[in-house]
Amino acid sequence: MKTKRSERIGAMIRILTENPNTLYSYPIFCEMFGAAKSSISEDIASIKSIIEKFGLGQVETVAGAAGGVRFLQNISDEDAHKFLLEICDKLSKEERILPGDFVYTVDVLSNPKYVSKMSEILATKLRKLGADFVITVETKGIPVALMTAKNLGIPLVIARRDNKLSEGPVVTINYESGSSNRLQTMSVAKMAMSQGKKALVIDDFMKGGGTVKGICGIMKEFNVTIVGVGVIIATAEPEQKNISDYYSLITMDGIDKNHNIPILRPTQSLNITI
Amino acid sequence: MKTKRSERIGAMIRILTENPNTLYSYPIFCEMFGAAKSSISEDIASIKSIIEKFGLGQVETVAGAAGGVRFLQNISDEDAHKFLLEICDKLSKEERILPGDFVYTVDVLSNPKYVSKMSEILATKLRKLGADFVITVETKGIPVALMTAKNLGIPLVIARRDNKLSEGPVVTINYESGSSNRLQTMSVAKMAMSQGKKALVIDDFMKGGGTVKGICGIMKEFNVTIVGVGVIIATAEPEQKNISDYYSLITMDGIDKNHNIPILRPTQSLNITI
Repeated sequence: MKTKRSERIGAMIRILTENPNTLYSYPIFCEMFGAAKSSISEDIASIKSIIEKFGLGQVETVAGAAGGVRFLQNISDEDAHKFLLEICDKLSKEERILPGDFVYTVDVLSNPKYVSKMSEILATKLRKLGADFVITVETKGIPVALMTAKNLGIPLVIARRDNKLSEGPVVTINYESGSSNRLQTMSVAKMAMSQGKKALVIDDFMKGGGTVKGICGIMKEFNVTIVGVGVIIATAEPEQKNISDYYSLITMDGIDKNHNIPILRPTQSLNITI
Repeated sequence: MKTKRSERIGAMIRILTENPNTLYSYPIFCEMFGAAKSSISEDIASIKSIIEKFGLGQVETVAGAAGGVRFLQNISDEDAHKFLLEICDKLSKEERILPGDFVYTVDVLSNPKYVSKMSEILATKLRKLGADFVITVETKGIPVALMTAKNLGIPLVIARRDNKLSEGPVVTINYESGSSNRLQTMSVAKMAMSQGKKALVIDDFMKGGGTVKGICGIMKEFNVTIVGVGVIIATAEPEQKNISDYYSLITMDGIDKNHNIPILRPTQSLNITI
């Protein structure tokens, strides 16, 4: 098949961006487009310049026999901040306040449109940690954890609250949930784990950090290292959480009792590089 | 900003494919690239030809004042079949058989790499139903439901097994689960629903169809119409399920007791157009 330059560039952009953080060797594209390696090299230089010029991400080339090219999410701090302000605004509504000063966030946290962008920020900020897989606990964190895993090109493991037949043999622990002060249970399938890997914890919400501490405990049983923790919303109080190192997109200061609205803001540390 | 043709094509492909089934008006691109509408029109004709030539999807233009261009997933029956054969092969392993003749599928059903492709097939086949949102029941179906919703450019609603504070007021029903023959509970947040919409049910697994029937029941409470049902794996037995119309990617015939492996195959009806 004879291909034009603009065709190759267009098709490669589609393929690379569909599978972020996944290395494609040049010979794959040479074969796909019936083009010489020198042409593909030039195409990839153009792709890199296009993607970066329009702020659509980052294209990385890796030299050598095992080398190739990959697309990486790379949202700017300015765009991230602007997007998070919109989300805070969307959530800061009186009708979202639930009994017990909970805030209704489920519609936003499971809408692919918003979740895509949140996980783009998480992937941009947490990619350097080099995790082998993402772990979350059911249920509300699953959408953002899945999309973050996709953006990082790694698998997702979901810890369950109950022990399910379909999980096979599991390791179970009890832990104290910071937000409900109740003893809770968490199980991870043995078949989902392999020893000595690096895990990135992603969840929707953190108050005391008990759930994340629970995940850390269960990962220890598998000899897995937690390389980082990312959450969408963390509460400002308690300042001292069960874990010290985490990255949050949004900070929740509580409920404004005068105006009866939740107070949320993009987390100040957004531009801190981990 | 002065832009070249190949730059505009590359950048537009990234933007359009990132948000499938989302209409972009031409003036958005005219402004973004400082180009005349006639240039953008030509670019889009090229994009359509590139995407379709390499089997990367479909590009649809809509004429008129409210018109524009959108990208649609469009995997061929041949590619879908080939991919599903791989998945069946991956799952047809002795070590995946669990007590009670369950099959361990969780690793595959939560791996973004596989889930992306499965939801690409579901979106291709079920897009014409014109759903306003996707609904699933926690937990294992959430990844594929989320990605299908993303591919269709619509929101996801997750029904919960337990009544959670964070969901706000809910509607709850009891239903009989086909696979466990137990009475189960399902709740949907009132704030996640609006009257008179069209829902597409997506789940990971169907045996008797009790869970899907439960979803249909709860949707009726909200005056929501179920326009279709898509699942990853459906069991061949019982042939008579609680719902008659559904679309499955893979059929599970049971366990081969001689070779001690699960028997799975791409569903024959794959190329039936709904």
